Amino acid sequence: MEDTRPIILVVNDDGITARGIKFLIEVASQIGKVVVVAPDSPQSAMGHAITISKPLRLDKVELYQDIDMYQCSGTPVDCVKLAVNQVLHRKPDLCISGINHGLNNSINVLYSGTMSAAMEGAIEGIPSIGFSLDDYTAQADFTHCLPFVKDICLQVLSNGLPEGVLLNVNFPNIKNIKGLKICRQAKAKWKEEFDERLDPNKRKYYWLTGVFQLMDEGEDTDVWALKNGYGSIVPVQFDLTAHHAMADLNNWVF
Amino acid sequence: MEDTRPIILVVNDDGITARGIKFLIEVASQIGKVVVVAPDSPQSAMGHAITISKPLRLDKVELYQDIDMYQCSGTPVDCVKLAVNQVLHRKPDLCISGINHGLNNSINVLYSGTMSAAMEGAIEGIPSIGFSLDDYTAQADFTHCLPFVKDICLQVLSNGLPEGVLLNVNFPNIKNIKGLKICRQAKAKWKEEFDERLDPNKRKYYWLTGVFQLMDEGEDTDVWALKNGYGSIVPVQFDLTAHHAMADLNNWVF
Repeated sequence: MEDTRPIILVVNDDGITARGIKFLIEVASQIGKVVVVAPDSPQSAMGHAITISKPLRLDKVELYQDIDMYQCSGTPVDCVKLAVNQVLHRKPDLCISGINHGLNNSINVLYSGTMSAAMEGAIEGIPSIGFSLDDYTAQADFTHCLPFVKDICLQVLSNGLPEGVLLNVNFPNIKNIKGLKICRQAKAKWKEEFDERLDPNKRKYYWLTGVFQLMDEGEDTDVWALKNGYGSIVPVQFDLTAHHAMADLNNWVF
Repeated sequence: MEDTRPIILVVNDDGITARGIKFLIEVASQIGKVVVVAPDSPQSAMGHAITISKPLRLDKVELYQDIDMYQCSGTPVDCVKLAVNQVLHRKPDLCISGINHGLNNSINVLYSGTMSAAMEGAIEGIPSIGFSLDDYTAQADFTHCLPFVKDICLQVLSNGLPEGVLLNVNFPNIKNIKGLKICRQAKAKWKEEFDERLDPNKRKYYWLTGVFQLMDEGEDTDVWALKNGYGSIVPVQFDLTAHHAMADLNNWVF
């Protein structure tokens, strides 16, 4: 009998052995036929990086029973490209990324490998979703998010998504999530604080750290939703054109 | 006498020794006081990656007379963060990135380290511009772009840019550029073609290659402008919210 279940590509940026992707695989297995292509090492904060100056490795691995899994030496975006072209040889019906150990709300969407993988899926024309939890530890427990993850996946499979749009879903780290809210990306930035140290040879080096600076109190933002106990869903686009600025710039004289 | 010239931060993704940044430094020096912070090795296609899992090096170098220059072991985005926090200890008046050896028009804006560096500048609240030329060779000649680069920098210094907006400027590789056009990002994607090879141990590896697929014939796009002999200027934003999709998603039942 032909397998008519939807094909679900599962990716992440924390690496194929992370707990978060295991939970996502569990949900995806209840819905469809799962194929996993994930980085062989942690690739957090890789943004939309791709690997063009060195070759890529792609190796089949067996971690969880009956799940088709591949690890890749490249970035999260590389994983999606390889999955579509070298593993599936077709577009999957859904591409889901995560669940990330840590939030990708607000400005973090730009730095996030999780979200870039989902964005690459959307660029390929695949309905795509990135999931993240407000728990940065390796031991994070994603159990309470799973009913929401499943619901969102089923709705996206059933309704599709508008052309050029993917979803950025973030969950608060509380057991009783109140529900889900459609939000916009809150305005914020990171205030960097480089931690300057000396190596054993007395040469300076720096660790990048920072403090999240919120510049937006809007109750329609993802930051507000998460603070108030809701999961946030931001529809994200990869047309970066600031259409509202075009008229103004057309008045400039070159 | 106090130096009242604007402070111009120059960054790139091709690395501090690239020809493109030398041309950009030349233009910037005619306008203001230049500080360069650029990667110590090529960082093309790094997107908005930042370095959080290893420390960063930042070293003063002397390449061009009277120019304050630093090389950094990190990504283009790291360079901007380090420049503001550890070199300048203030926001520069302008942040310019490039000139990139190769186009960053259309969907390429997402993968581009050049544009991510400029975007990081914009996130920091600095008027920021990325420049790119349609010549991918190390020996590229940027001379014919320089009057346009200077003009755009002067206008941005004088007019500022709307909040949350930066400019993505691309030049065709022809001697007589017809002028500049304000454009939107053309719809396109890369069709991947992985080049599969065997290493000396008979293990497979892949080179990522691809073909640019244009899905947009609009005469208001950057691709059209470049094909027709114009430099393209796309105003770019880092609010990725697909505002037009929010109403639709609010009808979903969770």
